[in-house]
Amino acid sequence: MTEPLTDLNRLCIHTITTKPWSLAEAIDGYTRAGVPGVTVWRQWLEPLGVDESARRLRDSGLEVVSVCRGGFFPAETAAGRQEALDDNRRAVDEAEAIGAPLIVLVCGAVPGIPLDEARRQIADGIAAVAPYAAEAGVKLSIEPLHPMFADDRSAVNTLKQANDIVDALAMPNVGVTVDVYHVWWDSELEEQIQRAGKTVFSFHVCDWRTPTRDLLNDRALMGDGCIDIRQIRAWVEATGFHGFNEVEIFSNEHWASDQTEFVERIKDAYLAHV
Amino acid sequence: MTEPLTDLNRLCIHTITTKPWSLAEAIDGYTRAGVPGVTVWRQWLEPLGVDESARRLRDSGLEVVSVCRGGFFPAETAAGRQEALDDNRRAVDEAEAIGAPLIVLVCGAVPGIPLDEARRQIADGIAAVAPYAAEAGVKLSIEPLHPMFADDRSAVNTLKQANDIVDALAMPNVGVTVDVYHVWWDSELEEQIQRAGKTVFSFHVCDWRTPTRDLLNDRALMGDGCIDIRQIRAWVEATGFHGFNEVEIFSNEHWASDQTEFVERIKDAYLAHV
Repeated sequence: MTEPLTDLNRLCIHTITTKPWSLAEAIDGYTRAGVPGVTVWRQWLEPLGVDESARRLRDSGLEVVSVCRGGFFPAETAAGRQEALDDNRRAVDEAEAIGAPLIVLVCGAVPGIPLDEARRQIADGIAAVAPYAAEAGVKLSIEPLHPMFADDRSAVNTLKQANDIVDALAMPNVGVTVDVYHVWWDSELEEQIQRAGKTVFSFHVCDWRTPTRDLLNDRALMGDGCIDIRQIRAWVEATGFHGFNEVEIFSNEHWASDQTEFVERIKDAYLAHV
Repeated sequence: MTEPLTDLNRLCIHTITTKPWSLAEAIDGYTRAGVPGVTVWRQWLEPLGVDESARRLRDSGLEVVSVCRGGFFPAETAAGRQEALDDNRRAVDEAEAIGAPLIVLVCGAVPGIPLDEARRQIADGIAAVAPYAAEAGVKLSIEPLHPMFADDRSAVNTLKQANDIVDALAMPNVGVTVDVYHVWWDSELEEQIQRAGKTVFSFHVCDWRTPTRDLLNDRALMGDGCIDIRQIRAWVEATGFHGFNEVEIFSNEHWASDQTEFVERIKDAYLAHV
């Protein structure tokens, strides 16, 4: 059995986890709480602009773990696919500006596009953006999304599919993100994490609530659901991964609560259940 | 490309699809509409009792395609697992009584039981019930459920897992049900349907709505979603399957509509999209 974590040294929180907070408020809240890492969602960069956001992040001492999110490659038209590539290159610029070594890819899906075609467009899109990202020293990480998002968020729904794309592209800055919420149900999870090996670039945690009242915004705090998070962390660490454990929770319930108290609850749940 | 269906000869409707209707009303509604097949959910047998329900079904001329549902094998205690076996044997009795050749298994899951343990209990449960079902001339069909139900409805979440159980048990009356709603996202679907071959015992259709507003009760009428149902039917028929195409729709929206009109819409959607 993997040992519990005994400190917060590898704790990272996604800005979307504390959605009511602006970037400035999140920086303040996380640093006051002793949270060392932050993953910045791109919309958090808009109010202050990228340069000022970058300055504030640098001054805070927080480690910027990643940028969420690139991807959304499939589109009905060539123009739409080009727009996606342009947007992903902008995400690379933003990551470079704020010192994020990695962009998480939510690969995209469109209800009218067959999944196999969407998956081809995803691989093509990643292949087109990866060299630009490599020049900027930025990694791209494919996050397989739960199959309940196969209609309009991602046609990559298992770690096996993500690994297949990584293997096919064979580009050193393309890897995978393991988010327990999306993959916990998969009976091939352990073997696919082993297969990913050194290409496990990042690790996200939260929990699966029973009953889940909303497909998108009802994720639970670690320990409030049925996922054996520590077991999955053990598999991930067996690959040699010792990066941040990133807390990414979309939750109408938690967003409605006091965010300072919520960050304290995250810290407790992190030590108890991750 | 598979040809569209040109008649209703293989159309079956699940009683839960027209949830506001009692068994008597469903028998009346389906026969008036020229729907030849029915799958009976067990709770529809309660008001009239099994014998009277069986008599009404026999007199109606409807073909009883299957009984929904057996399963729910995993439990925290041995007593709980025994209760599940007893209930599954009662389901066999009911199927025999109403002339249903098949019971659909929703295999079960419990948030506190690890998925691999739940899967073992499921295989054990099926193995325990299958001989009793065989004596009654009843088949048991494992329906893999969408991974979003892995917490509390089924630990069998892909057709591959269902096939693995069928292969391991190697009992002639144990096979699989392909429900497009649960498996459409799976990149291994075609190969796993081929692998199932003659053990594809039944086929369920509906559609995946975007956005899906409720995990359980927001299934769409065929054509109102993103599933390529006809493609999946082609794969299923390539195994030699030519049984009923069963319309199983849980939908708060459709249940709130006039059920006679809904059955007409089902017929139109069946010919246009299945």
